[in-house]
Amino acid sequence: MKQLETKILESGKVIGDDILKVDAFLNHQIDPVLMAGVGKAFATAFKDMGVTRILTLESSGIAPAVMTGLEMGVPVVFGRKSKSLTLTDGLYTAEVRSYTKQTVNEIAVSKNFIEKDDVILIIDDFLANGQAALGLKSLVDQAGAKIAGIGIVIEKTFQPGRALLVDQGMKMVSLARIEKFEEGRVIFAPADI
Amino acid sequence: MKQLETKILESGKVIGDDILKVDAFLNHQIDPVLMAGVGKAFATAFKDMGVTRILTLESSGIAPAVMTGLEMGVPVVFGRKSKSLTLTDGLYTAEVRSYTKQTVNEIAVSKNFIEKDDVILIIDDFLANGQAALGLKSLVDQAGAKIAGIGIVIEKTFQPGRALLVDQGMKMVSLARIEKFEEGRVIFAPADI
Repeated sequence: MKQLETKILESGKVIGDDILKVDAFLNHQIDPVLMAGVGKAFATAFKDMGVTRILTLESSGIAPAVMTGLEMGVPVVFGRKSKSLTLTDGLYTAEVRSYTKQTVNEIAVSKNFIEKDDVILIIDDFLANGQAALGLKSLVDQAGAKIAGIGIVIEKTFQPGRALLVDQGMKMVSLARIEKFEEGRVIFAPADI
Repeated sequence: MKQLETKILESGKVIGDDILKVDAFLNHQIDPVLMAGVGKAFATAFKDMGVTRILTLESSGIAPAVMTGLEMGVPVVFGRKSKSLTLTDGLYTAEVRSYTKQTVNEIAVSKNFIEKDDVILIIDDFLANGQAALGLKSLVDQAGAKIAGIGIVIEKTFQPGRALLVDQGMKMVSLARIEKFEEGRVIFAPADI
């Protein structure tokens, strides 16, 4: 997605060898016009797949997911993150390991909002090691629902996330794919759309 | 906002004397079409006020704020909640007391994303005691920026939030105003628009 790649080059900040900070338009400040474009791109990529609901993770997944939901005319559910849940009645839960932060978080979604006849589109802001996406997939699996695929705003292709997800038979669409960082500059791989 | 009141009556759940659960369309699952309507309503209410940026709080404020930002053509910043911040360099922070949960959270926003010549529209999902809105106001005040006003999706008029904010000279627009709960039913006060 050209508009997204341009924004990453203009406003993204490369920190060290493997971190891209996009808090100017995605993770802290949000560019709503760009997010509307992201929503349109995902809606096009996953049309005709019978998607009934979108699942994402708070907080940075919400803006792209809601714009996609608006385009597709389906509700959006966001999984909640928690250090450790004491009450899990009525929830599907999964553990998500963060390699960068060296932490394990629980994520949870109410059983009311994923039903077994749902066809779920998973949306997330970043894909690196794939742990958040696998956690979201686990929530859908627990509900016995189907997964239409996974839409990722920014993928780091040099980390193992995509391989893990594709190995599980998932359709994956990333709007920007980063091949590497070279002297503080972002080098893109061809995007999926 | 009629469409919102209808949704509250259809999908909201009254718990006890003073809690309304709206996780079917606002706080956990999000109705993107309704949120687009919310965004249009806020954009109309605060037009011609020179708004340059929208400030909200993760996670439930993000969807209505992003839809408002899309309508107004301005960026959206979401304040982050944290139990206690150890690193506050580069952040404006404020304490927010929750009366229902009996907790105090810190909220924070990067100094990069509120500037002193900004005119900020504050958006939040709920107004009860007004503590979150006052915390957001404090972040804007610390930056030396102006506040255009506060847009609230659902206000509980029987709690003191509005009085606190109006006392400080804030323009307030609530899209649904709940006067009371009567035998598990929601009774509305006239909304602002």
